[in-house]
Amino acid sequence: VNSKHTPYAGHLAIIGLGPGSRDLVVPRAIQMLVECDLVVGYRLYIEQIRDLVEGKEIHVSELTHEVERATLAVLHARAGRRVCVVSSGDAGIYGMAGLVLDILSQVQEETFGSPSATSAEKRPEPLVEIVPGISALNAVAALLGAPLMHDFAVISLSDLLTPWQTIAHRLSAAAAADFVVVLYNPTSRKRHWQLGEAQRLLLESRPATTPVGLVRNAYREGQQVWFTTLDHLLDDDVDMFTTIVIGNSCTRVQQGRMITPRGYERHVSQVHEVREGTKHDSV
Amino acid sequence: VNSKHTPYAGHLAIIGLGPGSRDLVVPRAIQMLVECDLVVGYRLYIEQIRDLVEGKEIHVSELTHEVERATLAVLHARAGRRVCVVSSGDAGIYGMAGLVLDILSQVQEETFGSPSATSAEKRPEPLVEIVPGISALNAVAALLGAPLMHDFAVISLSDLLTPWQTIAHRLSAAAAADFVVVLYNPTSRKRHWQLGEAQRLLLESRPATTPVGLVRNAYREGQQVWFTTLDHLLDDDVDMFTTIVIGNSCTRVQQGRMITPRGYERHVSQVHEVREGTKHDSV
Repeated sequence: VNSKHTPYAGHLAIIGLGPGSRDLVVPRAIQMLVECDLVVGYRLYIEQIRDLVEGKEIHVSELTHEVERATLAVLHARAGRRVCVVSSGDAGIYGMAGLVLDILSQVQEETFGSPSATSAEKRPEPLVEIVPGISALNAVAALLGAPLMHDFAVISLSDLLTPWQTIAHRLSAAAAADFVVVLYNPTSRKRHWQLGEAQRLLLESRPATTPVGLVRNAYREGQQVWFTTLDHLLDDDVDMFTTIVIGNSCTRVQQGRMITPRGYERHVSQVHEVREGTKHDSV
Repeated sequence: VNSKHTPYAGHLAIIGLGPGSRDLVVPRAIQMLVECDLVVGYRLYIEQIRDLVEGKEIHVSELTHEVERATLAVLHARAGRRVCVVSSGDAGIYGMAGLVLDILSQVQEETFGSPSATSAEKRPEPLVEIVPGISALNAVAALLGAPLMHDFAVISLSDLLTPWQTIAHRLSAAAAADFVVVLYNPTSRKRHWQLGEAQRLLLESRPATTPVGLVRNAYREGQQVWFTTLDHLLDDDVDMFTTIVIGNSCTRVQQGRMITPRGYERHVSQVHEVREGTKHDSV
């Protein structure tokens, strides 16, 4: 079977490569890469999986060309091909999944709505599969310790597509309701003041000593993991490759690990029972 | 080298198996299972990876015995063994990571603080590694479409270890600040009223027509994916294996997919440019 010329609708897989290291890519994503005809992605992500897609058609583009990549992927999949859109992290968390689905529904509506559409254009929609991946929140939590054992809010500080007022409201609400807060996109070459403003808003309802964990280049070359407190958040060099976790009122940093307890405070006596060897089943 | 009797500190890996299907377990977690001497976990999770750990020492226990499992793992790792603690989802998101780290630090403080501690007891702490995994939020988002393209709050409705007042405050704050909301543990055999109360709180600042996506048994046998609106949240049978995503003010359900746009509203003309074939680089 030459899948490149099947008369049936194609296959559109949207995958996330996780933080970067190959051993954090789920096998399902690898399978999609191996089985597809065509790979679409940002240059740096394609480099990460170049060995898996040798001989396949590859469309690379630059970081900001998301619409171009998504549209190409949709058009090729509608033409019957097996297409894989490559994202970093989890394609479903601030990733490419939304844009690809958006453009797919747009293109379909245009085609089906047009009286001049030929039957070839009215082909069935491609099979779409989004493969979940390890997002920055999963990766960074693992490297910091266990900060996400309780309710948390995930907020991007990028105001390129979102009014700052919306972001500010969310920061204040999350701080007041004692969520652990995960900050994506804290800063970039063009955005400098947002992290300071976020700090100011968080300090309105969180103590200055609130523990903060930071990870730069999680599971990549140059990985750095460090801790500070909310009042010292701006002392260190935070860049666009850094993800930040701000603790809730119970979070502590102990022996180099950030822990948000889940409420097992009464387990001390149980620990002793197990130690005495009287309280476990072995198989 | 017989790692079971090394004089050095052991290795303590805390892994998450994802939602259940093997092709969503990261290779790093598989490697930890293969390399360890001893596996500790809840019975059902151990069953999922039984083929990978044949011949190894296995400690299984029931669902509620988390403290017992964590303590056993810590004690064996401190005795120099390579231990793997098995969790579902991501061990770092409402998972076993926090409890294990908590007990580790407790046992260490007790040992080092005790004047009678022997030098054997004062051995160096084991190497601890938390391996990130696919949590329900990653899995459910992928199955629903792309609901997590914008800021979101993750809230567990279990009030076994958290006062309901804290949870209620978070629900209200998340709704008012227009977060997408992911609900873990919406109900259980013993907890029935929490989901209705959550609905009431969310409706205080969200329209009745707010889209809601539900997934039961994500990537497991009996998987079900369906959509409703906030006012009809209680019409369907939600159980403890269901995760719920409540959209923000921009989320829509279209052609069977839940999409929260990220703000690319002006991409229509770009789609046409790419269609004309004038706007892409191939490699």
